[in-house]
Amino acid sequence: MPELTREDVASWDEADPLLSFRDEFELPEDVLYLDGNSLGALPKKTAARLQQIVADEWGRDLIRSWNAHDWIRYPRRVGDRIAKILGAVPGQVIAADSTSVNLFKLLGAAVGLGGSRTGILSEEENFPTDLYVAQGFSGFLGTCRLKLVPRTALVTAIDDDVAVVTLTHVDFRTGEMHDMRELTRLCHERGALVIWDLSHSAGAVPLHLDRDDVDFAVGCGYKYLNGGPGAPAFLYVAARHQEAIRPPLSGWMGHEAPFAFDTDYRPAAGIERHLCGTPAILAMAALEVGVEIMARADMEQVRAKSKKMGDLFLRLVDETCDGLGLTPAGPRDSGKRGSQVSLRHAQGYPIMQALIAENVIGDFRAPDILRFGFTPLYLRYVDVWDAAMVLKRILESGAWQRPEFQKRQLVT
Amino acid sequence: MPELTREDVASWDEADPLLSFRDEFELPEDVLYLDGNSLGALPKKTAARLQQIVADEWGRDLIRSWNAHDWIRYPRRVGDRIAKILGAVPGQVIAADSTSVNLFKLLGAAVGLGGSRTGILSEEENFPTDLYVAQGFSGFLGTCRLKLVPRTALVTAIDDDVAVVTLTHVDFRTGEMHDMRELTRLCHERGALVIWDLSHSAGAVPLHLDRDDVDFAVGCGYKYLNGGPGAPAFLYVAARHQEAIRPPLSGWMGHEAPFAFDTDYRPAAGIERHLCGTPAILAMAALEVGVEIMARADMEQVRAKSKKMGDLFLRLVDETCDGLGLTPAGPRDSGKRGSQVSLRHAQGYPIMQALIAENVIGDFRAPDILRFGFTPLYLRYVDVWDAAMVLKRILESGAWQRPEFQKRQLVT
Repeated sequence: MPELTREDVASWDEADPLLSFRDEFELPEDVLYLDGNSLGALPKKTAARLQQIVADEWGRDLIRSWNAHDWIRYPRRVGDRIAKILGAVPGQVIAADSTSVNLFKLLGAAVGLGGSRTGILSEEENFPTDLYVAQGFSGFLGTCRLKLVPRTALVTAIDDDVAVVTLTHVDFRTGEMHDMRELTRLCHERGALVIWDLSHSAGAVPLHLDRDDVDFAVGCGYKYLNGGPGAPAFLYVAARHQEAIRPPLSGWMGHEAPFAFDTDYRPAAGIERHLCGTPAILAMAALEVGVEIMARADMEQVRAKSKKMGDLFLRLVDETCDGLGLTPAGPRDSGKRGSQVSLRHAQGYPIMQALIAENVIGDFRAPDILRFGFTPLYLRYVDVWDAAMVLKRILESGAWQRPEFQKRQLVT
Repeated sequence: MPELTREDVASWDEADPLLSFRDEFELPEDVLYLDGNSLGALPKKTAARLQQIVADEWGRDLIRSWNAHDWIRYPRRVGDRIAKILGAVPGQVIAADSTSVNLFKLLGAAVGLGGSRTGILSEEENFPTDLYVAQGFSGFLGTCRLKLVPRTALVTAIDDDVAVVTLTHVDFRTGEMHDMRELTRLCHERGALVIWDLSHSAGAVPLHLDRDDVDFAVGCGYKYLNGGPGAPAFLYVAARHQEAIRPPLSGWMGHEAPFAFDTDYRPAAGIERHLCGTPAILAMAALEVGVEIMARADMEQVRAKSKKMGDLFLRLVDETCDGLGLTPAGPRDSGKRGSQVSLRHAQGYPIMQALIAENVIGDFRAPDILRFGFTPLYLRYVDVWDAAMVLKRILESGAWQRPEFQKRQLVT
């Protein structure tokens, strides 16, 4: 392999069809931000949109904005924009609540559709909050068994009791990506429904929920969708399932006629029945800005750049950090990886703290993973290069051994 | 009763100890806003705080803000501020999710504590979303009976099956207020726990949750707390119950160690276990501004002004709208009323539309209620006077009969 130079890499940026998207984000000049998979960057338009909704819609038009600015349909409007990113036709996605709350709703929906099947199956390595929600759900319901198995045993574990398999598409630790189409098919073949958590996928990899015959999905708005910290999450229900579902979290915004103030709940037609309480309008406005940008991007271009950035980072780590204790935690094959590269190191925590101190921001996932996210809309190939060089320097110099980098933060 | 003049009423404003609070809100000059009980007005500081959290915390400090700006403890920090308004010591309130989702959590908590008692009791006239949530909860659980009775039959309906009584403190239609202390005592005497929905109470009337031995409460952030449309809601759990509860909605933010990423859920100590997904940070910042203002107000002064405003409005309606078809829908005794006055009129809907067209903003609640909210922090007595005069003029002139006022809006 011929030696690569920073100039070579800079020329990739010049040829990058997504390059202009970078101008749509506020990025601190001195930071290499490899954590858009944890909290996406701030779109430039967000501040102005928030000022507008605060001053003009809340401040001036007050309660009238529910009609005048169509706040009432905001969850659906943003949902339809997200649907495009997920490969879904409109009417199957709403923006609402958190990923965890939405997962609870869909577990209820899926178990409700399961007939005599009442069990939930997931993998041991699933994102913890998804496991906690499934544990809370099954413990609460009492009659619903939760089975956790290793990834390799998933398909064989789908027995006649399993109503639903709940999985995260891209593993939060390793970045390994499930084959959504094939796994969905195998679940269906064995009589189970599937819920996909797309928190690390939406806006990161091309998705085809409709084509792939997916039943349900959830995902967050604050990673690759750049909706801001704690942005509303989303929820997808395939049209074919919608009318049969009675949501466990049945609130007025999911009622057929919320402002009739009837005593009895009657589910709204379609996807809206999965709304519950009053939607978070200000947060929805911020999310919409991020989603609007992402929906304009060509997801095949996003994927191609994402793979190339990941491959570049792995190559540079191989070439420059050899013998310094790093090993890839996820697939080398970019086709099997989401938009992140994870590296194991026994001293992963202080090394990540040292990187952050040098303004190379990734995150640490216990017990030993350094996680680097690649967000094609606002990262350049030279950023990947520069980050790898800082990593090399920190490892070679042992700078991570300084006592301040051992100190545990509340959030890692 | 001597005739009252607008000048008399203006002199009350001059003597109002709360008058200076009005300067802390952005209020459109031409609007008489009697709907702060539906969506509170915009505090002047909110826009700047949102700009700061967007630009400096999200945009510049990015993921680091979870530690650097203590985002991770935001739900508890805002909760502790709300606790003061509720008459509760810190550590018993968090800001999170929506009122409906929080009610679901607390129904799960209460039924979990109920032992052999599994039933839920509420009143038929409770706020619909609370009924829908209880219906969804009991339908989902299967083993939990939901009983709805008229208000007058509540206490006698608490039999040995009732685990929890769920009530709204101030009736959303009529403004009638329950005696929280006495009703809580009666529920306890009969072996049931109580959940109070304080959406129409928090920031409107003095509350003493600790003194009154309340078990659980929920409420919204967007009415009298002025947190913005769809602001995070709050949830109160008395300290004595906290350690025994296993929340049905168990997510990572309610885990003992969210960033250990353990496979098994272990509830956080105390009130934090009722957190679920990632908190809505931007919305939380807006809520905090509103809560901070309210927490500075003397709730006894708020209550005194609120009663006086309601009494003034009722007196003016009596004196000027006699024979025009209006009848009070709630108590004339201000001690039994929340911070709203509701009037019935067979043509309530078009009359409210005509009022709104004249910039007197209240809202309509089916089938026939005109609802006027009185928010002592930013309303003046002269506003009450002026609103009553517009109401009189619309009724006398029949202006509400114009066809455009018949048209039903999505949100009423």
